[in-house]
Amino acid sequence: MWGIIATWRMAKEGIDSASEILGEKGCAGDAIETAIKAVEDFPFYKSVGYGGLPNEEMEVELDAAYMDGTTFNIGAVAAIKDFANPISIARSLSQYKVNNLLVGAGAEAYAHKQGFERKNMLTDRAKIHYKNRVKDMREIEISPYSGHDTVGMVSVDSEQNVVAGTSTSGLFMKKKGRVGDSPIIGSGLYADSQVGGASATGLGEDLMKGVVSYEVVRLMKEGLSPQEAVEKVTFDLDRELIARRGEAGDISIVAMNKDGEWGVASNIENFSFAVATEKQENTVYVTRREGDHMIHEVASQEWLEKYLSDRMKPLEEK
Amino acid sequence: MWGIIATWRMAKEGIDSASEILGEKGCAGDAIETAIKAVEDFPFYKSVGYGGLPNEEMEVELDAAYMDGTTFNIGAVAAIKDFANPISIARSLSQYKVNNLLVGAGAEAYAHKQGFERKNMLTDRAKIHYKNRVKDMREIEISPYSGHDTVGMVSVDSEQNVVAGTSTSGLFMKKKGRVGDSPIIGSGLYADSQVGGASATGLGEDLMKGVVSYEVVRLMKEGLSPQEAVEKVTFDLDRELIARRGEAGDISIVAMNKDGEWGVASNIENFSFAVATEKQENTVYVTRREGDHMIHEVASQEWLEKYLSDRMKPLEEK
Repeated sequence: MWGIIATWRMAKEGIDSASEILGEKGCAGDAIETAIKAVEDFPFYKSVGYGGLPNEEMEVELDAAYMDGTTFNIGAVAAIKDFANPISIARSLSQYKVNNLLVGAGAEAYAHKQGFERKNMLTDRAKIHYKNRVKDMREIEISPYSGHDTVGMVSVDSEQNVVAGTSTSGLFMKKKGRVGDSPIIGSGLYADSQVGGASATGLGEDLMKGVVSYEVVRLMKEGLSPQEAVEKVTFDLDRELIARRGEAGDISIVAMNKDGEWGVASNIENFSFAVATEKQENTVYVTRREGDHMIHEVASQEWLEKYLSDRMKPLEEK
Repeated sequence: MWGIIATWRMAKEGIDSASEILGEKGCAGDAIETAIKAVEDFPFYKSVGYGGLPNEEMEVELDAAYMDGTTFNIGAVAAIKDFANPISIARSLSQYKVNNLLVGAGAEAYAHKQGFERKNMLTDRAKIHYKNRVKDMREIEISPYSGHDTVGMVSVDSEQNVVAGTSTSGLFMKKKGRVGDSPIIGSGLYADSQVGGASATGLGEDLMKGVVSYEVVRLMKEGLSPQEAVEKVTFDLDRELIARRGEAGDISIVAMNKDGEWGVASNIENFSFAVATEKQENTVYVTRREGDHMIHEVASQEWLEKYLSDRMKPLEEK
């Protein structure tokens, strides 16, 4: 039973391509890389790849990671600039025994030597967002939290190999060099082909405190369903952070087990995700919390259109 | 019951200073920072701070992390150059809600603005090691693994606050920008004052696959003693990596619970560690595996002297 699940509606088109690969008995690694590249290449998603929003110095610094749940091969880049597809660089790094996580100038040197496509990832639209935010920040103090929609995915192929991947431009207006959970094995993603995989999005600094993706996979190994596992991890961490710190950042987690069963939980409103399996065609859901459980509703055509049109509407400098 | 435990004999002098702080009801954060700074400042330890061995471009790139188990505050730097005390920069970053993990040039910009001490961390001795290794590598293929002795520590103070910290120059001859487990929350370190803390050293790329420090703390929360927890995590991961990959890198873990009880496990020969508590004066042990258990033996005076003299003996360029 093959399958693939991803954070946010933005993954839908990528999952169409990935489903074709998986349906033809392709491998989960190819499915993940293809689907994430589609999100990276689409200029209107503000938190991933091309069009991603810049750090406080107006530089687009990108993070991505890849984990093969069969071999435990891992690869990741962080704070890398000017490359089109961080997920492909991360996957490439996963073939080595050491030097799997490269950051900053070192990651760029590796990607250059390997011949990965150079691209200035700062779009005119992202520049307008930046300039407008600078103006807004003069007026009111805006938290740098808002608008983080990392893409994180888990896929299982027909050979029951589980792979997880992530890609993000991180927090808008982050400090230069800031790295969140996305390239961190255990927090942003984790995969074990004997169990399943998980990937997270939200406030990276808080997700790391709970090592959430590892914990979800561990709970699935203990026998919890993917849905039970993500709900437990999301709401336990939410409560723990509030108890210890007075507040909890955004926490959203998607998971899929080796049988293609999936689960999603979030402590925010209107978290969306896309999923396709051998039994279920590519579907976007919007999910909401009721107590300690989530209710997933298929996104209406109207919702889907609004999602895209909101992101693609003309943007003017203030 | 205060206590502090650290990887390797090199931590001994730092633990003397930390014990004074803890004995006078000082906080675990000060104990950790003081003890790790002592290791960073000592020029003859090849894998931490000043005197740390360089990457393949003969640059000393350093990683460090700090986690407060009470508030879950985290701070970390990775691939930072030319600053004397990465642990202090990591601790400083832990005061913020976001931007807690900074890498490369961004980490350096932060440290500069905060006024942290600049220092060229490449010593003449480290240069000789580099040049000799370059010559050796022409003759035989040497794995970049050997000689990783990250310092990782866990401390609990008399108020039962648990703090963990790490500092390392990483793998000798690593790729520029390579980051191991040391600055990664969950892998290199984890702390929860309701339970205890753990820190790891070894082959970072393999430690990350098991998210070992988080898993040790989690098992202690389930009721395992620190010694049971580190043995289970170390040997389970060792077996898992051999089953999946044919080999396992070095894995060594130290842990201490909130009551000052401690445990250490390692899959290598001659792993040493230093520990002090309210009840036990600063002691260096050498530990060895027997089946799935460890036997800790107090290091003899002869062993201690040889450890230091080996590291401080004259080094000549080949």
